[in-house]
Amino acid sequence: YDTVINSLNDAGIEFVELGGVKPNPRLSLVNEGIKICRKNNIDFILAIGGGSVIDSAKAIAAGALYNGDVWDFFIKKAEIKTVLPIGVILTIAAAGSESSTSCVITNEQGNIKKGSGSQHYIPQFAIMNPELTYTLPPYQTAAGIIDIIAHVMERYFTNTKYVDFTDRLCEATMKSIIVNARIVMDTPNDYNARAQIMWAGTIAHNGLLNTGRQGDWASHHIQHAMAGIYDDMVHGAGLAVIFPAWMKYVFKHDIARFVQFAKRVWDVKGCDMSDEEIVFEGIKRYEQFAKSIGMPTTFKELNIPSDRIEEMAEKCGPDGNFVKLSVDDIIKIYKLAL
Amino acid sequence: YDTVINSLNDAGIEFVELGGVKPNPRLSLVNEGIKICRKNNIDFILAIGGGSVIDSAKAIAAGALYNGDVWDFFIKKAEIKTVLPIGVILTIAAAGSESSTSCVITNEQGNIKKGSGSQHYIPQFAIMNPELTYTLPPYQTAAGIIDIIAHVMERYFTNTKYVDFTDRLCEATMKSIIVNARIVMDTPNDYNARAQIMWAGTIAHNGLLNTGRQGDWASHHIQHAMAGIYDDMVHGAGLAVIFPAWMKYVFKHDIARFVQFAKRVWDVKGCDMSDEEIVFEGIKRYEQFAKSIGMPTTFKELNIPSDRIEEMAEKCGPDGNFVKLSVDDIIKIYKLAL
Repeated sequence: YDTVINSLNDAGIEFVELGGVKPNPRLSLVNEGIKICRKNNIDFILAIGGGSVIDSAKAIAAGALYNGDVWDFFIKKAEIKTVLPIGVILTIAAAGSESSTSCVITNEQGNIKKGSGSQHYIPQFAIMNPELTYTLPPYQTAAGIIDIIAHVMERYFTNTKYVDFTDRLCEATMKSIIVNARIVMDTPNDYNARAQIMWAGTIAHNGLLNTGRQGDWASHHIQHAMAGIYDDMVHGAGLAVIFPAWMKYVFKHDIARFVQFAKRVWDVKGCDMSDEEIVFEGIKRYEQFAKSIGMPTTFKELNIPSDRIEEMAEKCGPDGNFVKLSVDDIIKIYKLAL
Repeated sequence: YDTVINSLNDAGIEFVELGGVKPNPRLSLVNEGIKICRKNNIDFILAIGGGSVIDSAKAIAAGALYNGDVWDFFIKKAEIKTVLPIGVILTIAAAGSESSTSCVITNEQGNIKKGSGSQHYIPQFAIMNPELTYTLPPYQTAAGIIDIIAHVMERYFTNTKYVDFTDRLCEATMKSIIVNARIVMDTPNDYNARAQIMWAGTIAHNGLLNTGRQGDWASHHIQHAMAGIYDDMVHGAGLAVIFPAWMKYVFKHDIARFVQFAKRVWDVKGCDMSDEEIVFEGIKRYEQFAKSIGMPTTFKELNIPSDRIEEMAEKCGPDGNFVKLSVDDIIKIYKLAL
């Protein structure tokens, strides 16, 4: 913080600060930021933090130049035409928001977490120094790792046929994250492993890995619906709970793809095993990996009760591309995750 | 060709044509293009072809706005400040020039093939339709495939330590090319396999795979020196000859990296084998792959005599980053390739 403030002062750049961004960033703070921008004729937003800070900055950058309610962009009532330019100093490898087209905000009225997408959101630059991530709490590091893998998995599970090259790029990314996750959990100040994960976090979400293929994104949205209600939930921790349940629920839709995932990403050898056994061994290894870095894989471990599942599923609504899920399907996925 | 011409005419866009680009594109044609640009106040260059056409367009685009001899950029006498904007319609997956910073031209005076690099060279767009590559002669398809793999290998063999993520991205790219090469050689009009190779060709050379790592490029320059003299040589075919010889000459510098290459890219299992045996098995599989798609792996198969090796090595000069090669070293590499 001091480095940035001194650097801005030395360069004679005037600035206004806005702190207080929370996980699952809130619309009220975004609206506060928009007011500050308008009042002070702000022409550039520097986001210093992780996904919640960057997404707040994106929403502020869009809202400041929009003659209406910024929430319009999240309920698809309006399309983003222009935004204030954004720069990023990244402090956690996770959301990939430093190079992505996406922005996710929680509207406290109704506890609704929603995403908005636009090419205009892509930041002008991102300063990515792995050293800034040394002091993250292990839980945050681990949740970031799960989030990055989830971004790749959302792209990996696709109905688009013959996507061999991007499949392999996805697998390479997941493998590198898995290998390096084990190192950073043991040795938080391992520069090299932190650097691999930080760069993988950007590549996972900047569009490269979904070139020419449709993504799924149901697991993200199922998690968003949980986080809208339980708003202190860490996004990555929620994903670690939802993804195994989602995989168990949908794998029969394309068992060959799940076999490939188990073999290439989780090194399941598969001798004398049925395809279904291979798939479940892959899912088991995902769960073991999540647990090994301190992530929950059930509602129970997340300390979330099971009495608002229907409400969450309703909030999510039908979702998914790989498999089209109804609200009933989503209830069943939540129940598989209890 | 007709599609493009009709499209330009329909859009009311005036244009001047310049044909006659040869493999290992010549400086004389570049100079002709520069004159055409100046005379006609050309403000955009559309390259329709492969690497030789695109590189000619790049050199013309740089030279047209430079008050001096365009060759200055290739002998590092001047730095590129601006170029005319370039668009590409790609007709062969090979050079990756459609998104690269590089441009390679042969100066007929002295038979010197030299490269020039600049961010300004990156085309504004590239239209990449795999169908345009269906009718390539098999030899050209195969040479393109070898060129793409070579672009990855030049990045892969690095002294930069701890580059796990980009290593895996490189390996994923090479594996996808190898798998899909076999398909396109058997079935030239397989859209899906052509598409994988075309996209891999771009990713191989657009900077992603060398993020944070130093490349080598000796094999390319050793091939350039050959092509300067034997100027009808197809670039990829020359690389198929040089790369195995280069690997055999330098592998002891970092045997672990070559073992990784053999195991991860060429699926060498390596049970009961020494590291050196694993490395040579990997090189053998590279050679077998090259032969299987119709590429030469020796001077003899390329129909190039051995009597000008010293001259070629002198023309190349000391080169390489992974291993610093003297002119003597380069002579030895040529001899290993006879």
